[in-house]
Amino acid sequence: MGDLPSWNEGRAKQAIVDFVGCVTTTGPDYVSENERVAVFDNDGTLWCEMPVPVQAFFANDRLRALAPKHPEWKTTEPFKSQLAGDMKGVMATGLKDIAELTMATHAGMTTDEFVEIVRDWLFSAKHPKLNRAYTSVIYQPMLEVLEYLRAQQFSTFIVSGGGVEFMRVFAEDVYGIPPQQIVGSTIKTHFEFDDGKPVLVRDPALDFFDDKAGKPVAINKYIGRRPIACFGNSDGDREMLMWTTLGRPDGLPSFGLIVHHTDAEREFAYDRQHVLSGQLDKGLDEAEKYGWVLADMKKDWKTVFPATAKTANQS
Amino acid sequence: MGDLPSWNEGRAKQAIVDFVGCVTTTGPDYVSENERVAVFDNDGTLWCEMPVPVQAFFANDRLRALAPKHPEWKTTEPFKSQLAGDMKGVMATGLKDIAELTMATHAGMTTDEFVEIVRDWLFSAKHPKLNRAYTSVIYQPMLEVLEYLRAQQFSTFIVSGGGVEFMRVFAEDVYGIPPQQIVGSTIKTHFEFDDGKPVLVRDPALDFFDDKAGKPVAINKYIGRRPIACFGNSDGDREMLMWTTLGRPDGLPSFGLIVHHTDAEREFAYDRQHVLSGQLDKGLDEAEKYGWVLADMKKDWKTVFPATAKTANQS
Repeated sequence: MGDLPSWNEGRAKQAIVDFVGCVTTTGPDYVSENERVAVFDNDGTLWCEMPVPVQAFFANDRLRALAPKHPEWKTTEPFKSQLAGDMKGVMATGLKDIAELTMATHAGMTTDEFVEIVRDWLFSAKHPKLNRAYTSVIYQPMLEVLEYLRAQQFSTFIVSGGGVEFMRVFAEDVYGIPPQQIVGSTIKTHFEFDDGKPVLVRDPALDFFDDKAGKPVAINKYIGRRPIACFGNSDGDREMLMWTTLGRPDGLPSFGLIVHHTDAEREFAYDRQHVLSGQLDKGLDEAEKYGWVLADMKKDWKTVFPATAKTANQS
Repeated sequence: MGDLPSWNEGRAKQAIVDFVGCVTTTGPDYVSENERVAVFDNDGTLWCEMPVPVQAFFANDRLRALAPKHPEWKTTEPFKSQLAGDMKGVMATGLKDIAELTMATHAGMTTDEFVEIVRDWLFSAKHPKLNRAYTSVIYQPMLEVLEYLRAQQFSTFIVSGGGVEFMRVFAEDVYGIPPQQIVGSTIKTHFEFDDGKPVLVRDPALDFFDDKAGKPVAINKYIGRRPIACFGNSDGDREMLMWTTLGRPDGLPSFGLIVHHTDAEREFAYDRQHVLSGQLDKGLDEAEKYGWVLADMKKDWKTVFPATAKTANQS
């Protein structure tokens, strides 16, 4: 079986193969291995973000678990709407408010305790529409892109609006991406040393929201090297696509790809309309102008989800 | 030639070799390759930080270069003292103020421009006492530790109070540590897109000061995995030594080492006294209690600096 077996022959697949061939073959476009950095958005690019991102489902379940200890949430927004199941009310507040609500429900424990909470949830919860574990609503064609790039000595990074410590629980087992290659939104933590035991405590305050113009900022801060390949699916990825592909002073070749959600049957179809996460409006207009490849989920992908589910290691 | 040739036989060298042997050999203390994370402080651990850290020399030179455009600095502290050569006046303000002064003199240009400024400086400046390029006031025995660990599939990270974007200019060529494995202090940046050319602009505001209790916070945020080995030299490294070696819920074996600057002849001798950067007071008292190895620069190191200087690639 050749490379990228879940991709149909077509412009998108060919563009990936051509780019990788070009930067790994001796010649004017050759790029040294240490410069082969590829960045991937997560929600909507590596796994499903509809009807809401997976972390929003987690936040919702966690809110319900914590609600008995927080009677004040019954009368305070956005907790009130969320607990009442009014997703539209919550969605109206926008992604940043959601992130803050998420952070608030994710704080007050140590980093080690948080990992256990997320791990337990990932093993019990299922996507309500797709009826699969969340760690298997990942995109098989994108797993193949990750593996294909790594086989050519690319370093693969996630650069996501999602929480870093949420993603790290499963990303190494599910995507093969280790914790130090995951960039995302963060909440503040602080160090405590009690009884000879050091801990980091998660505080209910946003440290950094890794979306839109924040993505190149975070890429520079965490990775410190301009990626030569960038994969996204929404206008939240626009600035990192720009940062990767336009006006590079180093003159390195570069590649940008947008996963276009066109498949209402196998997954979801959405682009320009307002959604909690994943709106693709400017990117649809700019793709041709900037040379970004549009991958049409319906036409370009033979399969969407893996036949056999991958799971995070429950050790 | 065996491993760690610039280390004299003794407790420190033996402790390093024993630890690495133990975690890489099948048995109860074996640690899988992806968990082999080692963190290194930079100033005073990998290179000389006396009489002031290298980045302070850079800041000073940069201040002088920029002074003609900033007449107000003649009457404003800490610029006034710095320009007058009153290092004691500047040192009295403490490391965090110095960092802010440093950041202020490092801002107002793009990240690409900053790299060029640092690179040019590194190639023209020399350490005033040691009369060597700054990229060669690095410690040969520590270079050997880095190589020794990497040969055993450790990932080596810098976790320093120094500026991330300053260190990245030379750390890959000089230490073999790539940009994405460098954690440090950061200033704020913002994204701009002008004329089809995206840039990141460095703003005169501290984003994060990576020292003391900030080090485990940064390790968690950037690396996302608890190191099993930590190398430092001052009380600024105390909390990351604790985070590495004490009360680990994962039960993994761990190692902490403190470079003790005891060699006034070949380098500098300092520990408990107040210095701008590098005070080692609590650590001297706690090393035995917590099992941290003290490496005595005078006794344990055959040589201090490399015979042939390494330089950052001026391409």
